[in-house]
Amino acid sequence: MAEKIPEMSPSMFIGIEGGISFGSGQPDLAPPKEVYEVIKNFKSFKYGLIQGEAPLREALGKKHNVSPDNVVVTNGASEALDMVMRSVVKPGEKILLTRPYYYSYPPMCDFIHAKPVYTDLKDGKIDLDDFQEKVEGAKLALVNSPANPTGSVQSTKVLKEIEKITKDSGTVLLFDEVYSALLYDGEHYTPKDEHVVVVNSFSKTFSLCGVRVGYMFTEIPMIKRMIEIKTHTSMNTNLLAQQMAIESLKLPSSFIDNQLNIWRERREIIYNGLVDLGFDLWKPEGAFYVLPKPPHNIEPKKLVWNLFNKYNVITYLGEWFGAPDRIRLSYALDVEKIEEGLKLIGKCVEELK
Amino acid sequence: MAEKIPEMSPSMFIGIEGGISFGSGQPDLAPPKEVYEVIKNFKSFKYGLIQGEAPLREALGKKHNVSPDNVVVTNGASEALDMVMRSVVKPGEKILLTRPYYYSYPPMCDFIHAKPVYTDLKDGKIDLDDFQEKVEGAKLALVNSPANPTGSVQSTKVLKEIEKITKDSGTVLLFDEVYSALLYDGEHYTPKDEHVVVVNSFSKTFSLCGVRVGYMFTEIPMIKRMIEIKTHTSMNTNLLAQQMAIESLKLPSSFIDNQLNIWRERREIIYNGLVDLGFDLWKPEGAFYVLPKPPHNIEPKKLVWNLFNKYNVITYLGEWFGAPDRIRLSYALDVEKIEEGLKLIGKCVEELK
Repeated sequence: MAEKIPEMSPSMFIGIEGGISFGSGQPDLAPPKEVYEVIKNFKSFKYGLIQGEAPLREALGKKHNVSPDNVVVTNGASEALDMVMRSVVKPGEKILLTRPYYYSYPPMCDFIHAKPVYTDLKDGKIDLDDFQEKVEGAKLALVNSPANPTGSVQSTKVLKEIEKITKDSGTVLLFDEVYSALLYDGEHYTPKDEHVVVVNSFSKTFSLCGVRVGYMFTEIPMIKRMIEIKTHTSMNTNLLAQQMAIESLKLPSSFIDNQLNIWRERREIIYNGLVDLGFDLWKPEGAFYVLPKPPHNIEPKKLVWNLFNKYNVITYLGEWFGAPDRIRLSYALDVEKIEEGLKLIGKCVEELK
Repeated sequence: MAEKIPEMSPSMFIGIEGGISFGSGQPDLAPPKEVYEVIKNFKSFKYGLIQGEAPLREALGKKHNVSPDNVVVTNGASEALDMVMRSVVKPGEKILLTRPYYYSYPPMCDFIHAKPVYTDLKDGKIDLDDFQEKVEGAKLALVNSPANPTGSVQSTKVLKEIEKITKDSGTVLLFDEVYSALLYDGEHYTPKDEHVVVVNSFSKTFSLCGVRVGYMFTEIPMIKRMIEIKTHTSMNTNLLAQQMAIESLKLPSSFIDNQLNIWRERREIIYNGLVDLGFDLWKPEGAFYVLPKPPHNIEPKKLVWNLFNKYNVITYLGEWFGAPDRIRLSYALDVEKIEEGLKLIGKCVEELK
């Protein structure tokens, strides 16, 4: 008798102790110590500027070569994405998403009563012809590079085309670059123009997920609407979080280089390991995810369930990201665990093939 | 030639140095020192539970006699109010507001494409007949007590009627009690029933405005939808903020009693001072606002502008709160400044009468 596989969702893995988790997308590395030194003597807890503290917006303006007036500091990239969408898109209007997508994107469209339309990626890459066709009539297009869950990076050439296509179609280009510092191959290009909004965060680069500090910048006048929305629905971003963000921007670039070396080693191990086990996948170029197709036509649901149930190994279903024939693994864990996890995945595959 | 009065908005007063501000609604008192001791050694910055850290929800559950499962911790009361509305109200549906209102309420309705309808307060008190008439067909009714900007407290009797009326009309009762600890007269009653959602915050009671930590609790299943919205648009509330909230709940009740004595003294001074100057107002029973009508038929705009322009005294226009014939003063400043401010208001009134 075939074992019944229960309905699964990411929340079933929350609070699971022990075992090996390729699930949640958060860095296991420690935040830089300078970042928590700064909060020890912080005592000013009055309302701050809704748009974000001036020193932080100045530092961000410098980093991204934009005016501090065009920056808004938010409760993580999530709030930035949501507020940009709320500022720009009316109920019933269309939002173009690339698929596979970060799993918060479709619910975000739902919460503002917008209609998501999809352009399917080809092995993680944007298909410009399809993008051009699908963007027609979309109020906003959301592009993520380096991307969760694909690990793909869109080339500068493609992103410049996207810039042009969205401009021509009168579509706001919302560019989510929260993994911009986690880039292994190629170069990172940030689209710019008067119809572009860029969102970034301190969570992934500086291991500050729980602190919730992100930001957006744009030259579009919608920034005023966004500040208005933040004024009435959220107010200033936590002041300690902003102080930590300021400190993290002062770190030397060697901090990021050192992190990158760690991530690059992990990438090689998980990529080669999965290839050796017969998984079908492209090599990730950024972020810390792989999105492989299981070998031997093993059903993703069967694999994810058996890995969890028998081996205490957590992986995510590709279907949560719009990729039903795949599974997603985050490699935000140390090399030893990745190797142990790969062994268990190998065992599980042997059993199921 | 009459001086031209410019268009005014609260933002024109941001960053004004010196002078006396009866403007912004934030306590001038220091937060309890225990609250910032706790952050000194805090080093865990991974994602937390979306719903809020368990120890905080347990403490809140105890305080309000509800299950911790029915509590959601948010980025201040603002996020709680917005997310409750987003969870419950669809575009085009009606939200009942009492008028004068806290100035974020109408924009909040606008941001979710809901239609605000108003029941006018009588000298700060709910008119039950009018409430009953206006609540018809409203998906949600928002009631605030003790209230900003009126300083009024709705009686237990009235709130129990409101409980019943909203239940009968199938309306969710959203009760904003962020000033519940700042009560000078009468008693505080928190509506309860299966159609009630309560929102509170640490900002006003513990002078933690900039930390942004609030919460909601309810028995309505919409809490699941709310957690889903928070999952995709905001994620966990800043972990340091939650730690500070936990500490503040451990403080003895004498902390709040001592604060209340300070606020009560200020209330007497501003109330009596404004009465002596001929302003028409009711005595505030809670929070830290008065909403007087200027004497001698002086136009509120003229008074607010002259106070600012000639005397560097900041007051707010009642029209920002739906009370165009009044001005709003916050008395969150020390007695000396209140007295000095009253003198300058007296001078200004003399000039304009």
